[in-house]
Amino acid sequence: MKQEKKAVILLSGGLDSATTLAIARHQGYECFAITFQYGQRHSIEVEAAKRIARSLKTAEHRLIPIDLASFGGSALTDPAMKVPKTGPDPSSIPITYVPVRNLIFLSYALAWAEVLKVFHIFIGANAVDYSGYPDCRPEFFEAFQKTANLAAVAAVEGKGIFQIHTPIIHMTKAEIIKTGLQLGVDYSLTHSCYDPTPQGLACGLCDSCRLRKKGFREAGVPDPTKYVS
Amino acid sequence: MKQEKKAVILLSGGLDSATTLAIARHQGYECFAITFQYGQRHSIEVEAAKRIARSLKTAEHRLIPIDLASFGGSALTDPAMKVPKTGPDPSSIPITYVPVRNLIFLSYALAWAEVLKVFHIFIGANAVDYSGYPDCRPEFFEAFQKTANLAAVAAVEGKGIFQIHTPIIHMTKAEIIKTGLQLGVDYSLTHSCYDPTPQGLACGLCDSCRLRKKGFREAGVPDPTKYVS
Repeated sequence: MKQEKKAVILLSGGLDSATTLAIARHQGYECFAITFQYGQRHSIEVEAAKRIARSLKTAEHRLIPIDLASFGGSALTDPAMKVPKTGPDPSSIPITYVPVRNLIFLSYALAWAEVLKVFHIFIGANAVDYSGYPDCRPEFFEAFQKTANLAAVAAVEGKGIFQIHTPIIHMTKAEIIKTGLQLGVDYSLTHSCYDPTPQGLACGLCDSCRLRKKGFREAGVPDPTKYVS
Repeated sequence: MKQEKKAVILLSGGLDSATTLAIARHQGYECFAITFQYGQRHSIEVEAAKRIARSLKTAEHRLIPIDLASFGGSALTDPAMKVPKTGPDPSSIPITYVPVRNLIFLSYALAWAEVLKVFHIFIGANAVDYSGYPDCRPEFFEAFQKTANLAAVAAVEGKGIFQIHTPIIHMTKAEIIKTGLQLGVDYSLTHSCYDPTPQGLACGLCDSCRLRKKGFREAGVPDPTKYVS
Protein backbone atom coordinates (compact mmCIF):
# COMPACT_ATOMS: atom_id res chain seq x y z
CA MET A 1 0.00 0.00 0.00
CA LYS A 2 1.28 3.44 -0.91
CA GLN A 3 2.10 5.50 2.12
CA GLU A 4 0.07 8.67 2.49
CA LYS A 5 2.19 11.81 2.59
CA LYS A 6 0.67 15.10 3.65
CA ALA A 7 2.05 18.62 3.85
CA VAL A 8 0.97 22.12 4.78
CA ILE A 9 2.03 24.64 2.09
CA LEU A 10 2.28 28.38 2.58
CA LEU A 11 0.67 29.85 -0.51
CA SER A 12 0.87 33.59 -1.14
CA GLY A 13 -0.41 33.80 -4.70
CA GLY A 14 3.06 34.64 -6.00
CA LEU A 15 5.33 32.78 -8.36
CA ASP A 16 7.58 31.25 -5.69
CA SER A 17 4.88 29.68 -3.54
CA ALA A 18 3.00 28.36 -6.58
CA THR A 19 6.17 26.60 -7.71
CA THR A 20 6.73 25.26 -4.20
CA LEU A 21 3.22 23.81 -4.16
CA ALA A 22 3.86 22.13 -7.52
CA ILE A 23 7.13 20.67 -6.18
CA ALA A 24 5.40 19.27 -3.08
CA ARG A 25 2.70 17.71 -5.27
CA HIS A 26 5.41 16.26 -7.54
CA GLN A 27 7.10 14.76 -4.47
CA GLY A 28 3.85 12.94 -3.72
CA TYR A 29 2.42 15.07 -0.94
CA GLU A 30 -1.29 15.65 -0.50
CA CYS A 31 -1.26 19.43 -0.01
CA PHE A 32 -3.08 21.60 2.54
CA ALA A 33 -2.57 25.20 1.48
CA ILE A 34 -2.72 28.17 3.84
CA THR A 35 -2.92 31.82 2.74
CA PHE A 36 -2.71 34.84 5.01
CA GLN A 37 -4.71 38.02 4.61
CA TYR A 38 -2.42 40.31 6.53
CA GLY A 39 -3.56 43.75 5.54
CA GLN A 40 -1.43 43.72 2.41
CA ARG A 41 -2.47 46.32 -0.12
CA HIS A 42 -2.85 43.78 -2.85
CA SER A 43 -5.77 41.48 -2.00
CA ILE A 44 -5.38 40.60 -5.67
CA GLU A 45 -2.65 38.30 -4.37
CA VAL A 46 -5.19 36.38 -2.27
CA GLU A 47 -7.41 35.88 -5.33
CA ALA A 48 -4.36 34.55 -7.16
CA ALA A 49 -3.75 32.10 -4.29
CA LYS A 50 -7.30 30.77 -4.66
CA ARG A 51 -6.82 30.22 -8.40
CA ILE A 52 -3.50 28.43 -7.86
CA ALA A 53 -4.90 26.21 -5.10
CA ARG A 54 -7.68 25.09 -7.46
CA SER A 55 -5.34 24.68 -10.42
CA LEU A 56 -2.84 22.56 -8.47
CA LYS A 57 -5.54 20.53 -6.73
CA THR A 58 -4.92 21.12 -3.03
CA ALA A 59 -6.84 18.91 -0.59
CA GLU A 60 -7.88 22.03 1.32
CA HIS A 61 -7.17 25.76 1.18
CA ARG A 62 -7.47 27.90 4.31
CA LEU A 63 -7.54 31.70 4.31
CA ILE A 64 -6.42 33.14 7.62
CA PRO A 65 -6.95 36.82 8.39
CA ILE A 66 -4.13 38.16 10.52
CA ASP A 67 -3.66 41.66 11.79
CA LEU A 68 -0.15 42.82 10.95
CA ALA A 69 -1.25 46.14 9.49
CA SER A 70 -2.10 47.53 12.93
CA PHE A 71 1.56 47.28 13.94
CA GLY A 72 2.60 49.36 10.91
CA GLY A 73 6.24 49.50 9.90
CA SER A 74 5.93 48.26 6.31
CA ALA A 75 5.06 49.78 2.95
CA LEU A 76 3.16 46.56 2.17
CA THR A 77 0.61 47.15 4.92
CA ASP A 78 0.79 50.90 5.61
CA PRO A 79 -0.94 53.09 3.01
CA ALA A 80 1.06 56.10 4.24
CA MET A 81 4.34 54.52 3.04
CA LYS A 82 5.18 54.46 -0.65
CA VAL A 83 6.35 51.28 -2.39
CA PRO A 84 9.79 52.04 -3.89
CA LYS A 85 9.97 52.02 -7.69
CA THR A 86 13.59 52.84 -8.39
CA GLY A 87 15.12 49.41 -7.93
CA PRO A 88 16.62 47.69 -4.91
CA ASP A 89 19.16 49.26 -2.58
CA PRO A 90 21.47 46.36 -1.71
CA SER A 91 22.83 48.14 1.37
CA SER A 92 19.64 48.05 3.42
CA ILE A 93 16.45 46.14 4.21
CA PRO A 94 13.64 47.53 2.04
CA ILE A 95 10.61 49.25 3.55
CA THR A 96 8.41 46.54 2.03
CA TYR A 97 9.67 44.31 4.88
CA VAL A 98 6.78 43.21 7.11
CA PRO A 99 8.21 42.55 10.61
CA VAL A 100 8.93 38.82 11.11
CA ARG A 101 6.19 37.89 8.66
CA ASN A 102 7.55 34.43 7.87
CA LEU A 103 7.89 33.64 11.58
CA ILE A 104 4.20 34.45 12.13
CA PHE A 105 3.12 32.59 8.99
CA LEU A 106 5.12 29.48 9.92
CA SER A 107 3.77 29.53 13.48
CA TYR A 108 0.21 29.42 12.17
CA ALA A 109 1.13 26.74 9.64
CA LEU A 110 2.60 24.68 12.48
CA ALA A 111 -0.57 25.05 14.54
CA TRP A 112 -2.65 23.79 11.64
CA ALA A 113 -0.15 21.01 10.89
CA GLU A 114 -0.39 19.86 14.48
CA VAL A 115 -4.19 19.69 14.34
CA LEU A 116 -4.03 17.86 10.97
CA LYS A 117 -1.30 15.51 12.31
CA VAL A 118 0.94 16.56 9.42
CA PHE A 119 4.71 16.86 9.94
CA HIS A 120 5.80 18.55 6.71
CA ILE A 121 5.58 22.27 6.01
CA PHE A 122 6.65 23.79 2.67
CA ILE A 123 7.50 27.45 2.23
CA GLY A 124 8.58 29.13 -1.00
CA ALA A 125 11.31 31.26 0.52
CA ASN A 126 14.19 32.20 -1.71
CA ALA A 127 17.57 33.58 -0.70
CA VAL A 128 19.00 34.26 -4.19
CA ASP A 129 16.75 36.56 -6.26
CA TYR A 130 15.02 38.07 -3.25
CA SER A 131 14.40 41.32 -1.46
CA GLY A 132 16.87 40.84 1.39
CA TYR A 133 14.44 40.00 4.20
CA PRO A 134 16.28 38.14 7.00
CA ASP A 135 13.47 35.64 7.56
CA CYS A 136 14.13 34.19 4.09
CA ARG A 137 17.56 32.79 4.96
CA PRO A 138 18.34 29.10 5.59
CA GLU A 139 19.62 29.75 9.12
CA PHE A 140 16.27 31.23 10.08
CA PHE A 141 14.40 28.14 8.88
CA GLU A 142 16.82 25.81 10.71
CA ALA A 143 16.25 27.73 13.95
CA PHE A 144 12.49 27.74 13.40
CA GLN A 145 12.44 23.97 12.86
CA LYS A 146 14.25 23.44 16.18
CA THR A 147 11.81 25.75 17.93
CA ALA A 148 8.82 24.00 16.34
CA ASN A 149 9.96 20.63 17.61
CA LEU A 150 10.19 22.03 21.15
CA ALA A 151 6.80 23.76 20.95
CA ALA A 152 4.47 21.16 19.46
CA VAL A 153 3.05 18.34 21.55
CA ALA A 154 3.18 15.87 18.67
CA ALA A 155 6.96 16.33 18.43
CA VAL A 156 7.54 16.32 22.19
CA GLU A 157 5.51 13.11 22.50
CA GLY A 158 7.65 11.50 19.79
CA LYS A 159 4.92 11.09 17.20
CA GLY A 160 7.06 12.68 14.51
CA ILE A 161 9.56 15.40 13.69
CA PHE A 162 8.34 18.58 12.06
CA GLN A 163 10.28 19.42 8.93
CA ILE A 164 10.35 22.79 7.22
CA HIS A 165 10.94 22.31 3.48
CA THR A 166 12.37 25.19 1.46
CA PRO A 167 12.81 23.53 -1.95
CA ILE A 168 13.51 26.70 -3.96
CA ILE A 169 15.68 28.53 -1.42
CA HIS A 170 18.89 28.23 -3.48
CA MET A 171 17.35 28.62 -6.96
CA THR A 172 17.54 31.71 -9.13
CA LYS A 173 14.22 33.16 -10.30
CA ALA A 174 14.92 31.71 -13.76
CA GLU A 175 15.47 28.23 -12.28
CA ILE A 176 12.25 28.52 -10.26
CA ILE A 177 10.29 29.42 -13.40
CA LYS A 178 11.82 26.60 -15.45
CA THR A 179 11.09 24.10 -12.65
CA GLY A 180 7.49 25.27 -12.35
CA LEU A 181 6.88 25.11 -16.09
CA GLN A 182 8.13 21.50 -16.14
CA LEU A 183 5.63 20.71 -13.35
CA GLY A 184 2.72 22.39 -15.11
CA VAL A 185 2.43 25.66 -13.17
CA ASP A 186 0.36 28.23 -15.05
CA TYR A 187 2.19 31.45 -14.17
CA SER A 188 -0.57 33.59 -15.64
CA LEU A 189 -2.50 32.69 -12.46
CA THR A 190 0.21 34.08 -10.17
CA HIS A 191 0.67 37.63 -8.97
CA SER A 192 3.91 39.22 -7.75
CA CYS A 193 3.51 43.01 -7.82
CA TYR A 194 3.71 44.95 -4.52
CA ASP A 195 1.70 47.87 -5.91
CA PRO A 196 -0.79 46.80 -8.61
CA THR A 197 -3.41 49.03 -10.20
CA PRO A 198 -7.00 48.67 -8.91
CA GLN A 199 -7.64 46.54 -12.02
CA GLY A 200 -4.86 44.15 -11.00
CA LEU A 201 -2.18 45.16 -13.48
CA ALA A 202 1.40 44.82 -12.23
CA CYS A 203 3.28 48.10 -11.87
CA GLY A 204 6.41 46.70 -13.52
CA LEU A 205 8.72 48.86 -11.38
CA CYS A 206 8.64 47.57 -7.77
CA ASP A 207 11.33 45.15 -6.59
CA SER A 208 9.00 42.21 -6.96
CA CYS A 209 8.08 43.08 -10.58
CA ARG A 210 11.74 43.66 -11.41
CA LEU A 211 12.73 40.23 -10.07
CA ARG A 212 9.86 38.58 -11.93
CA LYS A 213 10.69 40.23 -15.27
CA LYS A 214 14.36 39.34 -14.89
CA GLY A 215 13.42 35.72 -14.09
CA PHE A 216 11.35 35.21 -17.23
CA ARG A 217 13.98 36.97 -19.35
CA GLU A 218 16.78 34.78 -18.00
CA ALA A 219 14.65 31.63 -18.27
CA GLY A 220 14.09 32.48 -21.94
CA VAL A 221 10.33 32.00 -21.73
CA PRO A 222 7.50 34.48 -22.34
CA ASP A 223 6.23 36.37 -19.27
CA PRO A 224 2.41 36.11 -19.15
CA THR A 225 2.14 39.11 -16.80
CA LYS A 226 0.41 42.34 -17.86
CA TYR A 227 2.60 45.24 -16.73
CA VAL A 228 1.74 48.94 -16.69
CA SER A 229 5.34 49.77 -17.59
CA MET B 1 20.22 60.83 32.66
CA LYS B 2 18.23 57.74 33.44
CA GLN B 3 18.22 55.28 30.56
CA GLU B 4 14.85 54.49 29.10
CA LYS B 5 13.95 50.81 29.26
CA LYS B 6 10.99 49.46 27.33
CA ALA B 7 9.44 46.03 27.11
CA VAL B 8 6.56 44.24 25.41
CA ILE B 9 4.58 42.13 27.90
CA LEU B 10 2.24 39.29 27.01
CA LEU B 11 -0.80 39.86 29.19
CA SER B 12 -3.52 37.21 29.34
CA GLY B 13 -5.61 38.47 32.22
CA GLY B 14 -4.45 35.62 34.44
CA LEU B 15 -2.47 35.61 37.63
CA ASP B 16 0.89 34.70 36.06
CA SER B 17 0.99 37.40 33.40
CA ALA B 18 -0.25 40.09 35.83
CA THR B 19 2.64 39.20 38.15
CA THR B 20 5.07 39.24 35.23
CA LEU B 21 3.91 42.73 34.28
CA ALA B 22 4.43 43.90 37.86
CA ILE B 23 7.95 42.41 37.85
CA ALA B 24 8.83 44.17 34.58
CA ARG B 25 7.55 47.48 35.99
CA HIS B 26 9.55 46.88 39.19
CA GLN B 27 12.67 46.29 37.06
CA GLY B 28 12.17 49.75 35.57
CA TYR B 29 10.64 48.91 32.20
CA GLU B 30 8.04 51.05 30.52
CA CYS B 31 5.54 48.36 29.54
CA PHE B 32 3.67 47.77 26.27
CA ALA B 33 1.09 45.08 26.93
CA ILE B 34 -0.36 42.80 24.25
CA THR B 35 -3.41 40.58 24.72
CA PHE B 36 -4.71 38.03 22.23
CA GLN B 37 -8.35 37.32 21.53
CA TYR B 38 -7.91 33.84 20.12
CA GLY B 39 -11.39 32.43 20.21
CA GLN B 40 -11.01 31.36 23.83
CA ARG B 41 -14.31 30.63 25.49
CA HIS B 42 -13.61 33.03 28.29
CA SER B 43 -13.56 36.57 26.88
CA ILE B 44 -13.87 37.43 30.58
CA GLU B 45 -10.11 36.90 30.55
CA VAL B 46 -9.68 39.74 28.04
CA GLU B 47 -11.69 42.09 30.27
CA ALA B 48 -9.42 41.10 33.14
CA ALA B 49 -6.38 41.96 30.99
CA LYS B 50 -7.78 45.45 30.39
CA ARG B 51 -8.29 46.01 34.14
CA ILE B 52 -4.77 44.81 34.94
CA ALA B 53 -3.19 46.96 32.21
CA ARG B 54 -4.90 50.03 33.69
CA SER B 55 -4.10 49.06 37.27
CA LEU B 56 -0.40 48.48 36.53
CA LYS B 57 -0.09 51.57 34.31
CA THR B 58 1.07 50.19 30.97
CA ALA B 59 2.21 52.75 28.38
CA GLU B 60 -0.04 51.06 25.81
CA HIS B 61 -2.28 47.99 25.66
CA ARG B 62 -2.99 46.30 22.33
CA LEU B 63 -5.73 43.73 21.78
CA ILE B 64 -4.97 41.48 18.83
CA PRO B 65 -7.69 39.21 17.44
CA ILE B 66 -6.18 35.98 16.15
CA ASP B 67 -7.98 33.06 14.63
CA LEU B 68 -6.87 29.89 16.36
CA ALA B 69 -10.39 28.57 16.90
CA SER B 70 -10.79 27.74 13.21
CA PHE B 71 -8.00 25.16 13.48
CA GLY B 72 -9.81 23.43 16.35
CA GLY B 73 -7.93 20.90 18.44
CA SER B 74 -8.40 22.46 21.89
CA ALA B 75 -11.09 22.51 24.55
CA LEU B 76 -10.24 26.19 25.12
CA THR B 77 -11.38 27.22 21.64
CA ASP B 78 -13.70 24.41 20.51
CA PRO B 79 -17.18 24.50 22.10
CA ALA B 80 -17.68 20.82 21.18
CA MET B 81 -14.89 19.74 23.55
CA LYS B 82 -15.50 19.70 27.30
CA VAL B 83 -13.06 21.30 29.75
CA PRO B 84 -11.90 18.53 32.16
CA LYS B 85 -12.99 18.95 35.79
CA THR B 86 -11.51 15.91 37.48
CA GLY B 87 -7.99 17.17 37.98
CA PRO B 88 -4.84 16.86 35.89
CA ASP B 89 -3.62 13.63 34.31
CA PRO B 90 0.16 13.90 34.64
CA SER B 91 0.76 11.27 31.95
CA SER B 92 -0.53 13.29 29.02
CA ILE B 93 -0.93 16.75 27.52
CA PRO B 94 -4.39 18.08 28.45
CA ILE B 95 -7.03 18.83 25.82
CA THR B 96 -6.96 22.46 26.94
CA TYR B 97 -3.69 22.71 24.98
CA VAL B 98 -4.02 25.22 22.13
CA PRO B 99 -1.54 24.19 19.41
CA VAL B 100 1.71 26.17 19.69
CA ARG B 101 -0.11 29.09 21.24
CA ASN B 102 2.94 30.64 22.90
CA LEU B 103 4.89 30.42 19.64
CA ILE B 104 2.18 32.40 17.83
CA PHE B 105 1.83 34.90 20.69
CA LEU B 106 5.58 35.49 20.90
CA SER B 107 5.83 35.91 17.12
CA TYR B 108 3.27 38.71 17.22
CA ALA B 109 4.95 40.25 20.26
CA LEU B 110 8.23 40.22 18.36
CA ALA B 111 6.63 41.94 15.35
CA TRP B 112 5.29 44.70 17.59
CA ALA B 113 8.60 44.93 19.47
CA GLU B 114 10.42 45.39 16.20
CA VAL B 115 8.11 48.23 15.13
CA LEU B 116 8.43 49.84 18.60
CA LYS B 117 12.24 49.36 18.54
CA VAL B 118 11.97 47.44 21.82
CA PHE B 119 14.29 44.49 22.50
CA HIS B 120 12.74 43.01 25.64
CA ILE B 121 9.74 40.69 25.71
CA PHE B 122 8.27 39.36 28.97
CA ILE B 123 6.06 36.28 29.13
CA GLY B 124 4.51 34.81 32.27
CA ALA B 125 5.20 31.19 31.44
CA ASN B 126 5.62 28.81 34.31
CA ALA B 127 7.10 25.32 34.27
CA VAL B 128 6.40 24.31 37.88
CA ASP B 129 2.71 24.63 38.76
CA TYR B 130 1.51 24.39 35.18
CA SER B 131 -0.62 22.34 32.85
CA GLY B 132 2.18 20.51 31.04
CA TYR B 133 2.15 22.42 27.75
CA PRO B 134 5.52 22.01 25.98
CA ASP B 135 5.71 25.65 24.91
CA CYS B 136 6.02 26.66 28.58
CA ARG B 137 9.46 25.07 29.05
CA PRO B 138 12.76 26.98 29.24
CA GLU B 139 14.23 25.12 26.24
CA PHE B 140 11.38 26.36 24.06
CA PHE B 141 12.02 29.98 25.04
CA GLU B 142 15.77 29.62 24.41
CA ALA B 143 15.09 28.24 20.93
CA PHE B 144 12.55 30.98 20.23
CA GLN B 145 15.02 33.68 21.26
CA LYS B 146 17.60 32.32 18.80
CA THR B 147 14.99 32.20 16.05
CA ALA B 148 13.85 35.75 16.84
CA ASN B 149 17.37 37.10 16.48
CA LEU B 150 17.64 35.47 13.04
CA ALA B 151 14.23 36.71 11.90
CA ALA B 152 14.14 40.36 12.89
CA VAL B 153 15.92 43.03 10.88
CA ALA B 154 16.82 45.05 13.97
CA ALA B 155 18.80 42.08 15.33
CA VAL B 156 20.37 41.14 12.00
CA GLU B 157 21.49 44.76 11.51
CA GLY B 158 23.11 44.72 14.96
CA LYS B 159 20.85 47.30 16.57
CA GLY B 160 20.19 45.06 19.55
CA ILE B 161 19.58 41.52 20.74
CA PHE B 162 16.02 40.44 21.43
CA GLN B 163 15.65 38.92 24.88
CA ILE B 164 12.76 36.78 26.03
CA HIS B 165 12.27 37.23 29.78
CA THR B 166 10.48 34.50 31.75
CA PRO B 167 10.85 35.82 35.31
CA ILE B 168 8.39 33.41 36.97
CA ILE B 169 9.26 30.25 35.04
CA HIS B 170 10.84 28.47 38.03
CA MET B 171 8.48 29.78 40.74
CA THR B 172 5.71 27.81 42.41
CA LYS B 173 2.23 29.32 42.24
CA ALA B 174 2.58 30.33 45.90
CA GLU B 175 5.85 32.13 45.18
CA ILE B 176 4.28 33.93 42.21
CA ILE B 177 1.41 35.15 44.41
CA LYS B 178 3.71 36.29 47.21
CA THR B 179 5.92 38.15 44.71
CA GLY B 180 2.93 39.84 43.09
CA LEU B 181 1.47 40.92 46.43
CA GLN B 182 4.78 42.53 47.38
CA LEU B 183 4.68 44.44 44.07
CA GLY B 184 1.09 45.61 44.55
CA VAL B 185 -0.78 43.26 42.20
CA ASP B 186 -4.53 43.23 42.94
CA TYR B 187 -5.37 39.58 42.24
CA SER B 188 -9.08 40.27 42.45
CA LEU B 189 -8.64 41.82 38.97
CA THR B 190 -7.20 38.61 37.50
CA HIS B 191 -9.02 35.66 36.00
CA SER B 192 -7.72 32.08 35.70
CA CYS B 193 -10.70 29.77 35.09
CA TYR B 194 -10.88 27.85 31.79
CA ASP B 195 -14.66 27.45 32.04
CA PRO B 196 -16.33 30.33 33.92
CA THR B 197 -20.08 30.86 34.24
CA PRO B 198 -21.66 33.47 31.93
CA GLN B 199 -21.56 35.83 34.96
CA GLY B 200 -17.78 35.35 35.19
CA LEU B 201 -17.62 33.12 38.26
CA ALA B 202 -14.71 30.64 38.28
CA CYS B 203 -15.75 26.97 38.11
CA GLY B 204 -13.31 25.96 40.85
CA LEU B 205 -12.70 22.55 39.29
CA CYS B 206 -10.68 22.98 36.06
CA ASP B 207 -6.89 22.58 36.14
CA SER B 208 -6.39 26.33 36.16
CA CYS B 209 -8.75 26.88 39.13
CA ARG B 210 -7.12 24.00 41.01
CA LEU B 211 -3.65 25.49 40.53
CA ARG B 212 -4.89 28.92 41.60
CA LYS B 213 -6.60 27.66 44.77
CA LYS B 214 -3.53 25.61 45.72
CA GLY B 215 -1.32 28.67 45.15
CA PHE B 216 -3.26 30.93 47.51
CA ARG B 217 -3.53 28.14 50.09
CA GLU B 218 0.22 27.49 50.03
CA ALA B 219 1.01 31.21 50.05
CA GLY B 220 -1.13 31.51 53.18
CA VAL B 221 -3.08 34.49 51.87
CA PRO B 222 -6.81 34.87 51.18
CA ASP B 223 -7.95 34.02 47.62
CA PRO B 224 -10.13 36.91 46.32
CA THR B 225 -11.67 34.70 43.62
CA LYS B 226 -15.40 33.85 43.59
CA TYR B 227 -15.70 30.13 42.83
CA VAL B 228 -18.85 28.17 42.01
CA SER B 229 -17.47 25.18 43.89
